[in-house]
Amino acid sequence: MNKKKMAYYFGGGKAEGRSNMRNLLGGKGSNLAEMSRLGIPVPAGFTITTDVCNEFAASGERFPAGLKAEVKAAIARVEKTMGGRFGDKKNPLLLSVRSGARLSMPGMMDTVLNIGLNDSTVAGLARAMDNPRTAYDSYRRFVQMYGNVVLGVPSELFENILEKRKRKGHVLRDSDLSADHLKQLVAEFKALVAKKTGSKFPDRPMDQLYGAIGAVFLSWNVKRAIDYRRLNKIPGHWGTAANVQAMVFGNLGMTSATGVAFTRDPATGAKRFYGEYLTNAQGEDVVAGIRTPHPINLAGKAELGTDLVSLEEEMPKVYKELEKIYKKLEKHYREMQDIEFTVQAGKLWMLQTRTGKRTAISAIKIAVDMVAEGLITRKEAVMRVDPDQLDHLLHPMFDPTAKRRVVAKGLNASPGAATGRVVFTADSAESIVVADPKARVILVRRETSPDDIHGMAVAQGILTSRGGMTSHAAVVARGMGKCCVAGCGDVSVNVKKGVIKVQGHTIKRGDWISLDGGTGEVMLGEVPTIESEITRVVTGELDKSESLLYREYEKIMKWADSFRRLEVRTNAETPEDSRRAVQFGAEGIGLARTEHMFFDAERVDAMREMILADNKAGRKKALKKLLPMQRKDFEGIFKVMAGLPVTIRTLDPPLHEFLPHTPAEIKSLARKMNVKPEAIQEAVDRLHEFNPMLGHRGCRLGIVYEEITEMQARAIMEAACKVQKSGIKVIPEIMIPLVSTKRELELQREVVQRVAEEVIAAKKVNVKYTIGTMIEIPRAALTADKVAESADFFSFGTNDLTQTAFGLSRDDAGRFLPYYVDHGILKDDPFQVVDREGVGELMRIGVEKGRSVKPNLKVGICGEHGGEPNSVAFCHSLGLDYVSCSPYRVPIARLAAAHAAIEQNGNTVGKPKARKKTAKKKSRKKARK
Amino acid sequence: MNKKKMAYYFGGGKAEGRSNMRNLLGGKGSNLAEMSRLGIPVPAGFTITTDVCNEFAASGERFPAGLKAEVKAAIARVEKTMGGRFGDKKNPLLLSVRSGARLSMPGMMDTVLNIGLNDSTVAGLARAMDNPRTAYDSYRRFVQMYGNVVLGVPSELFENILEKRKRKGHVLRDSDLSADHLKQLVAEFKALVAKKTGSKFPDRPMDQLYGAIGAVFLSWNVKRAIDYRRLNKIPGHWGTAANVQAMVFGNLGMTSATGVAFTRDPATGAKRFYGEYLTNAQGEDVVAGIRTPHPINLAGKAELGTDLVSLEEEMPKVYKELEKIYKKLEKHYREMQDIEFTVQAGKLWMLQTRTGKRTAISAIKIAVDMVAEGLITRKEAVMRVDPDQLDHLLHPMFDPTAKRRVVAKGLNASPGAATGRVVFTADSAESIVVADPKARVILVRRETSPDDIHGMAVAQGILTSRGGMTSHAAVVARGMGKCCVAGCGDVSVNVKKGVIKVQGHTIKRGDWISLDGGTGEVMLGEVPTIESEITRVVTGELDKSESLLYREYEKIMKWADSFRRLEVRTNAETPEDSRRAVQFGAEGIGLARTEHMFFDAERVDAMREMILADNKAGRKKALKKLLPMQRKDFEGIFKVMAGLPVTIRTLDPPLHEFLPHTPAEIKSLARKMNVKPEAIQEAVDRLHEFNPMLGHRGCRLGIVYEEITEMQARAIMEAACKVQKSGIKVIPEIMIPLVSTKRELELQREVVQRVAEEVIAAKKVNVKYTIGTMIEIPRAALTADKVAESADFFSFGTNDLTQTAFGLSRDDAGRFLPYYVDHGILKDDPFQVVDREGVGELMRIGVEKGRSVKPNLKVGICGEHGGEPNSVAFCHSLGLDYVSCSPYRVPIARLAAAHAAIEQNGNTVGKPKARKKTAKKKSRKKARK
Repeated sequence: MNKKKMAYYFGGGKAEGRSNMRNLLGGKGSNLAEMSRLGIPVPAGFTITTDVCNEFAASGERFPAGLKAEVKAAIARVEKTMGGRFGDKKNPLLLSVRSGARLSMPGMMDTVLNIGLNDSTVAGLARAMDNPRTAYDSYRRFVQMYGNVVLGVPSELFENILEKRKRKGHVLRDSDLSADHLKQLVAEFKALVAKKTGSKFPDRPMDQLYGAIGAVFLSWNVKRAIDYRRLNKIPGHWGTAANVQAMVFGNLGMTSATGVAFTRDPATGAKRFYGEYLTNAQGEDVVAGIRTPHPINLAGKAELGTDLVSLEEEMPKVYKELEKIYKKLEKHYREMQDIEFTVQAGKLWMLQTRTGKRTAISAIKIAVDMVAEGLITRKEAVMRVDPDQLDHLLHPMFDPTAKRRVVAKGLNASPGAATGRVVFTADSAESIVVADPKARVILVRRETSPDDIHGMAVAQGILTSRGGMTSHAAVVARGMGKCCVAGCGDVSVNVKKGVIKVQGHTIKRGDWISLDGGTGEVMLGEVPTIESEITRVVTGELDKSESLLYREYEKIMKWADSFRRLEVRTNAETPEDSRRAVQFGAEGIGLARTEHMFFDAERVDAMREMILADNKAGRKKALKKLLPMQRKDFEGIFKVMAGLPVTIRTLDPPLHEFLPHTPAEIKSLARKMNVKPEAIQEAVDRLHEFNPMLGHRGCRLGIVYEEITEMQARAIMEAACKVQKSGIKVIPEIMIPLVSTKRELELQREVVQRVAEEVIAAKKVNVKYTIGTMIEIPRAALTADKVAESADFFSFGTNDLTQTAFGLSRDDAGRFLPYYVDHGILKDDPFQVVDREGVGELMRIGVEKGRSVKPNLKVGICGEHGGEPNSVAFCHSLGLDYVSCSPYRVPIARLAAAHAAIEQNGNTVGKPKARKKTAKKKSRKKARK
Repeated sequence: MNKKKMAYYFGGGKAEGRSNMRNLLGGKGSNLAEMSRLGIPVPAGFTITTDVCNEFAASGERFPAGLKAEVKAAIARVEKTMGGRFGDKKNPLLLSVRSGARLSMPGMMDTVLNIGLNDSTVAGLARAMDNPRTAYDSYRRFVQMYGNVVLGVPSELFENILEKRKRKGHVLRDSDLSADHLKQLVAEFKALVAKKTGSKFPDRPMDQLYGAIGAVFLSWNVKRAIDYRRLNKIPGHWGTAANVQAMVFGNLGMTSATGVAFTRDPATGAKRFYGEYLTNAQGEDVVAGIRTPHPINLAGKAELGTDLVSLEEEMPKVYKELEKIYKKLEKHYREMQDIEFTVQAGKLWMLQTRTGKRTAISAIKIAVDMVAEGLITRKEAVMRVDPDQLDHLLHPMFDPTAKRRVVAKGLNASPGAATGRVVFTADSAESIVVADPKARVILVRRETSPDDIHGMAVAQGILTSRGGMTSHAAVVARGMGKCCVAGCGDVSVNVKKGVIKVQGHTIKRGDWISLDGGTGEVMLGEVPTIESEITRVVTGELDKSESLLYREYEKIMKWADSFRRLEVRTNAETPEDSRRAVQFGAEGIGLARTEHMFFDAERVDAMREMILADNKAGRKKALKKLLPMQRKDFEGIFKVMAGLPVTIRTLDPPLHEFLPHTPAEIKSLARKMNVKPEAIQEAVDRLHEFNPMLGHRGCRLGIVYEEITEMQARAIMEAACKVQKSGIKVIPEIMIPLVSTKRELELQREVVQRVAEEVIAAKKVNVKYTIGTMIEIPRAALTADKVAESADFFSFGTNDLTQTAFGLSRDDAGRFLPYYVDHGILKDDPFQVVDREGVGELMRIGVEKGRSVKPNLKVGICGEHGGEPNSVAFCHSLGLDYVSCSPYRVPIARLAAAHAAIEQNGNTVGKPKARKKTAKKKSRKKARK
């Protein structure tokens, strides 16, 4: 350990480090070295490595042997480069110590500035600066900062003294304090430190320096930093580097300044230099917002329509140099940079450069532009767009500048931004919208039921006070792509009185509220929304020629498609959703939930009749009514999905989900069905389940009531034959849910196959169909070698697989899952990001065992994880064939799949499966027709 | 295939087969061969192998080439041995064809007797028998049997003709029909066959023989046989053998007879020859019960107190020979035999010998006696007692001879036999029993709640119309060792009116009913029960010296203990249950469910106060009330379990289980707590869960409400310190439930450890404790290598592991699980027998991964499977350290563990773990103190 170099010098056009030494020197340190190498003016300094930080922590806060010698040598080099000497009375060199980890952890760790000041050096500084006030102000700031950061004296104690001093001196602002005031303050600060710590404030510059370095290292392990790391999945063993650097001052008068800038516009991605600065100021002043920063150049000035003078005008020479530097940096890093600079008495110093954060729009534009400029490859361009960010570009969103009056938070059940007037019944929602198609309403219910569908369909969004992520409201809303906040327990809904009570507010029928389906927030009033441009083009509302964004997005997505190996399908069960998904690039349907079709008000009656029948004949009679409806559904989907595979899952939820539950609903159904309400109540009671999630559902229904599967198989195959007869190729894939044993699949397969062959023989159309299964029960994954014998394909139902693998009901997890995630017991909500260790292990076993029997077994995923980038990457690594997700997430999945392929393979593209590739290309072409 | 021998001859003191060829020749065939080898007179014959059966089925019902030659040769040998010729007119040899599989499948497959009869041979038979009536009756029986079994003519059509003939002849019984009547009947039967099959009845003896052989082979695959095999787990590929054997007749007059006997008494195990016979009769007559069979010897006659003459008196020579034979057989097989014999005109023929079925009592006696006789080893003796059978010896049981009027069937929630008068409330149960301590009541409720505990405690049994195997009633009843039939949906309970309606019967308050907790049956009236003798000795009601059964049982159990490797613990949470379990041989507690202690009426109030508190301070206050109660519970258990390990599980069920649910209960609680009913209703609503099984329970409670675990840890450790201070060694093992991630266990471990160290320091007693976890969630098993890092031990909770691995709620499985088991989709109810393929795979992974990190990790099982023999064997094969089960199942588990060890190791006893063995012996000694 001790033989390793511990301090890396930079400055004066030289450097011992470089940008690829980020792990050892941290982001800031490696980039300072790199800039110096490039001949860019940076205040000289040196970086103490992350290894030293780790050793410091491990050895009980002792600096490793040999460090002092290296530091001494490095300081000598800094002095030589910068002029001045550290601790010198006449021409003192001041130092800063800043943290710098491998990844940026903004504001988490400590910084100490102006190190080297004491009662004798401050006089030299005053002379060197020719500005006693600034010198003493630096001294005052140093003692305050050091006293707090290094010595642990609460900062409010310093502030109290400062305030007292200002009152006494009848001054309002810090900057009005005179040098004498500041001198006195220094003495008072030091007295405070001595009193609080029991020791004199350290005056020896070297002591100050090591105190600061130690403090920076220790700040890696303060609670705040540990929490941040846990949340951002940064390992603790990385450690931070400490950057020791000569101070430069932007506050030495009107020829000094400080600023920040981006090499391109971080909001729009436009290729223009964009930034702000202040003269006679220090870095913190730009951030603090006490003075309004000036635009950096004329272009910025014009855009803001301001009279504030720009750097381009005020310091043209400096600006020219800055321009040269930013161009050099961007070309060198081949990436948009976020830079910080200081001008000290007319001389420009660069303090930092790093990759700039940006919006999704700008990420796309910059990536596409840089390819055109020859700066980066297409593969790199694809990697530059974060799939998670894409989401914002696809859903309507609240205007980010608008004010939000958040009064409650429920489950973010279905994303989107909705604003409208409160209604309490589906009927009133419908009648309002029928009367005025432009009217916007939010349907508020305790829970929704199939009887509410017509209201949900016309509402902007749905708010429920009960129910979870898989409640009726949540499931249906997601299916509709409609915003929904579910299970918002803070909200008390009184339908009769027509009021909602929440946090002391009373919201009445007709009042405006807004829902953020992405965060679960409920807001008072009408929060303005903005439309997604890409979606408008996709749906044909806006012409492609009018949207540069869309054309750029399209380029990125085409490139992404050329790199990915995973096929991307969609979860959809209506022709509208299917069409939308294909427009978004879906290459098939991975999950069509047939039960969603039954929630339709008209059909739910037939469904209920089926459920209430107590014998096979009765069920068959009701199923006969459902047959033509289902057939029509499938016809519609098959037509839209022409030539693309359509995976249809047979009935999955427990039957009682279709039954009414409130006395009023029961009465109304009884009237319709001409039976006694008691009979319905009895059925509801009979079908009640303690744990419906683990109850009589999925293939367990189709096995005990074979006739249900028969009807569904018939509807699918009759529709397939009819559509194929009309000249459209149909590829139905029939999927059996909730299988836990091979025998279940075998039995359902027999039923489907028998019906399918009957229909094919009768219709004389050769439709090729396959029969597969969901893998969503641990036992199915564990016995996948057996199950695979009866399966043409597998599809991981990771929603249920997560519930069963964790023994965790998604609907009930609200009381402890957030706690678990907040406290780092779980890294992520496993319903959002696949839990690789547990659920993922089951998936791995499932794929391995399944393919041990059928090496070419097609395996996909249709849980909601199929549209989540981290999970998509995991699916790629498992060798899955496809992911399936909701229509709006298809582009995200496409991009994530490309990322996964590029990351895994570097320069090559996946394992090409010759046969599959061709099929995929073909299907993609069709999909875009 | 064709080179294999297909027909194995036996007879005349010779045989080509032998008893160890059961797989090829079936049980009957191999034993016939063995008897012949031993020089025991069996009618000569030959066995066609199971291979031929399989080939016959596989080849589309064709006999393999070469079979006919072998059969011809074998018949020639039979003719030579027996005299007579097959198909000969003068001295015809008749043959029988009987099935015989590897395992007995009584009545499942077909038999054809008297083969070789036609209009010409029958005359010869009549002469040879010197009895035309019997000859024609044989002919009549043959045509009827062949027509039905081989040719498929429904047997009632033959019966109709027979009845008509009897009416015409004015005779009452078959035996009164004359030879002429029978002759006519043969003609009519043949006409019926010709009419129904369109072909003439086959007259050629060889055709008859092959028809019969084919029919016997085919009967292996009739639905009835397939169902039987599925239920009894007999593989279909075994096939059946066909035994072709010379006919002998027990109905040739008063020197002929037929009978069955056991070499020992199958009911009591007494060493005496026991059997029945009839003169002038055929085998079926003994079974049919038209004539009363006679006792076989004077001893039997004396026991029955009958005047019926015995075989010993009637045919002393034959009886002497039979005595010689049975002794020879028992000595040869070293096992009690069940034999069949026929005497034809004074000559004794043995038709069958096989291992005799017996009661549990007799199994024990025979095993112990045979060891004393030097016939078998102790190891064999242990293997001779079926662990499942032991159950009957431990629970009170209904008198097996009593009549049962079963009116409904619910879940067999807790075994036992209960009979009593119906009461509908806990209070009335209590007041009745208080008034008359001998009064017996059955508490009938829709569901039970903690408020019913006092009534349950005094009732003989509990019947509920709702709720499953883990409902309150079921769980509490099992804990009390009390009979319970739960979730009996056929029963409609009207508490207000005080009536139960079931199947048209109305049962009123005070009426007698009986419950069979082992089968779930509900019976009208008072079914007499008999006490378990062993239990009476165990509990000290009866002195050991008065019970031979107990002393023999004790021997077997001691032998079993010397062979087993698995430790056997119990699931118990009261001193009473713990004491009982130790008396039954438990070597520790594997699961003490702390929540059961809270169901006590007095405590549930404090528990409810805790739940209803909406902040930590409130919860702590209520927990403080619970602390001394819990501490006292643990003290009691620790005292009883002196020196034995006690595994205590922290709180597991969701909180709402403790809350009242009906409006009346809520009102009553509100009054007690002096709050508004609305407040309680609100809490009940708030705590409602959609899938409580997968909800906020187990360690999830202890993590979010750390103070609960703190209180429990404190109660355990304070009790441990106190008891240990009094000189009794305490070994607490604290177990965290429902862990799915290592972090959860880590966090709970921290809490328990902190409290434990505090208590130990304060009390200054060095109690050694360990902290482990349940493995009951798939994810915990899959990540067992991680979890093991924080665990001192694992205990498989196979109840919940089965629920999650299958995605199957035990409480809701009633609508499809019975269907699954009946239809062979699942071999067994996975809640009774561990599903080795799925749940077992998770257990295998759990053990393997756990021990990959900690090779000596102690691993047990505390699900209900811990007392089920097949599952115990599986646990043994996995290398578990112990199984834990309810007190009454401890002996069963001990015996099953011995079986597993003996089966696995043949002559050696497990992998002896020196260290563990000693510890085990020590603990065993203590357990018996």
